[in-house]
Amino acid sequence: MKIATITPTFYRIPLPVVLSDSTHGDITHFDFITARVLTDDGLEGVGYTFTPGTGGSAIYALLQNDLHDCLVGQDARHIEHLWNRMWWHIHFAGRGGAAVFSISAVDIALWDLVAKAAGEPWWRYLGGDDNRVRAYAGGVDLHFTLKALVKQTEGFLEQGFRAIKMKVGRDNLAEDVKRVAHIRNLLGPDLPLMVDANMGWRVDEAIRGARAFSEHDVYWLEEPTIPDDYAGHAQIARDGGVPIATGENLRTLHEFEHMIRYGEIAFPEPDVAICGGVTTWLKVARLAEANNLPVTSHGVHDLHVHLLSAVPNASFLEVHMFGLERFIQHPIKIEDGLAIAPDRPGHGVELDWDALAEHEVR
Amino acid sequence: MKIATITPTFYRIPLPVVLSDSTHGDITHFDFITARVLTDDGLEGVGYTFTPGTGGSAIYALLQNDLHDCLVGQDARHIEHLWNRMWWHIHFAGRGGAAVFSISAVDIALWDLVAKAAGEPWWRYLGGDDNRVRAYAGGVDLHFTLKALVKQTEGFLEQGFRAIKMKVGRDNLAEDVKRVAHIRNLLGPDLPLMVDANMGWRVDEAIRGARAFSEHDVYWLEEPTIPDDYAGHAQIARDGGVPIATGENLRTLHEFEHMIRYGEIAFPEPDVAICGGVTTWLKVARLAEANNLPVTSHGVHDLHVHLLSAVPNASFLEVHMFGLERFIQHPIKIEDGLAIAPDRPGHGVELDWDALAEHEVR
Repeated sequence: MKIATITPTFYRIPLPVVLSDSTHGDITHFDFITARVLTDDGLEGVGYTFTPGTGGSAIYALLQNDLHDCLVGQDARHIEHLWNRMWWHIHFAGRGGAAVFSISAVDIALWDLVAKAAGEPWWRYLGGDDNRVRAYAGGVDLHFTLKALVKQTEGFLEQGFRAIKMKVGRDNLAEDVKRVAHIRNLLGPDLPLMVDANMGWRVDEAIRGARAFSEHDVYWLEEPTIPDDYAGHAQIARDGGVPIATGENLRTLHEFEHMIRYGEIAFPEPDVAICGGVTTWLKVARLAEANNLPVTSHGVHDLHVHLLSAVPNASFLEVHMFGLERFIQHPIKIEDGLAIAPDRPGHGVELDWDALAEHEVR
Repeated sequence: MKIATITPTFYRIPLPVVLSDSTHGDITHFDFITARVLTDDGLEGVGYTFTPGTGGSAIYALLQNDLHDCLVGQDARHIEHLWNRMWWHIHFAGRGGAAVFSISAVDIALWDLVAKAAGEPWWRYLGGDDNRVRAYAGGVDLHFTLKALVKQTEGFLEQGFRAIKMKVGRDNLAEDVKRVAHIRNLLGPDLPLMVDANMGWRVDEAIRGARAFSEHDVYWLEEPTIPDDYAGHAQIARDGGVPIATGENLRTLHEFEHMIRYGEIAFPEPDVAICGGVTTWLKVARLAEANNLPVTSHGVHDLHVHLLSAVPNASFLEVHMFGLERFIQHPIKIEDGLAIAPDRPGHGVELDWDALAEHEVR
């Protein structure tokens, strides 16, 4: 089962509606990079990664110019070895950023390939016994009017969600509090409500925000400040009184280790497409378990639904409509607050390559 | 003084001799990426960055596809603002790796440009009063025979160096100890001798190595283990009994902060070409000063000779013949152990563009 080719493709996909959060401003499109791994015996695995609109060409360049030759001829089953081979091959200008995105795409493809070879869906291949996980709908709605926010929330409830996440970090904290109070009132006392500041705050602002939200029973406060400030996260957790979630901007197992050890977070949120792939995601999940913590997810729900199904310490799956769903043949199923992992072999995501083709960047 | 264009160029430069260390194995060439910033009033600044042979195309892609449009039309003097603008523009697939290399190249070009506009060399523009700094010769010699190592060391002494760094991390610690003892004997008791493990060891191995070297008066032990293990560095420093230096694999001000706070290192070694440019290098130097620590350097000595001349807490400058000296018009001057920063405006590095051209990657 030797790797014959790695084929990366770079797409730039316009969003159906412009999204915004407190850090990235207006997001008009996303970069989507696929990596197809083909073995000499004809097996194929598909991996992918994404960014909110910058850096895609660097990820593609690493796949094309550095990782391809590093992998061709290697046994596709030796994933741990291959992960380390890639890591060290591009370590100097790697160890984070675009390098981790490119490794993630390949690693996902390798895990897809080996599970397909075994004829098993990821969730069972990885040891799970139940393919249903609790899910929440993640809104990207900071600049929505309150009316639009309410409409979106009602839509999520109609789709079967029983937990909701909304953005915070408007110019005025009183506005955030009003919006959180309104949505809490809409959900009633029983449904979890998460809030996400997307790194928009200083530590003092995050503590002030957490304290103001706490009377509205916020399940977690996500990304209160920059991911580089471990001690700041611990201070926010202690003084703010709300559990802290973070992870979408952590790129290595070690960064998660530091954020747990020094940052005292409650909900690690690794994203398989941008933290180093399935290999790293599982290690973060085990690290969380060792620290008596749950693991949750960010983005790419079609992949995470399997991973969360497979681990004993799963918290909520984020379901996040980012425009990619238009290019995926089988949309994720949500039933009474639960997301269902498919029984198709591998990750089971079938991309619509023809529809993607018109967005390819050459 | 508006930015009119940013012109990146990507070169792949063969090394005159194959180098090797305990992590990168054999290094046959390096990637060299330049960024030229031109303003609408005709001023030009030149920046550059490098890697030991992988990732160059990703750095080039970020400069070409993401940073160019982010900068054109901006005032070149607003460097702090522009640094943050670049940082956040590519943050998601950035915050390390190739992104920091590309930002570094632009930042160096901007500082070159503003110092040239002022008609001052960097060392004086940045507040220095003496353009001489203590320098050491950094050998990349792990796989040299002892005879070749001795010959190299004698050559360094003849060139005027009064401090030497050698690699450690051979298969057998006893060999390392023998080589260190031999070079210490050659140098006599007064000249500093540094050793560099290039991340090749586990924590227990590094402690064992440090203890074995300490009787040979090792000035510092560099990169004893992976840069991701802050607590490990502190343990090596405490239990090994040799001061620890690290930095060539740290990519942000925050990583230096963690390595000082949690890692208890003695010699932070930021590299201006790969830590975020002059802007970040100076912040790391100030952070070190605030912690009562010296600051030293890694690589690109033609740039660091200015920066170390300009700060009050300078330790040794690394002088590192990596093959780039063939493309620089005025080689660095070494006199009785001191390196001399030039009085040419800006950083004063004049690249031989014609000689570089034959190595351009298109």
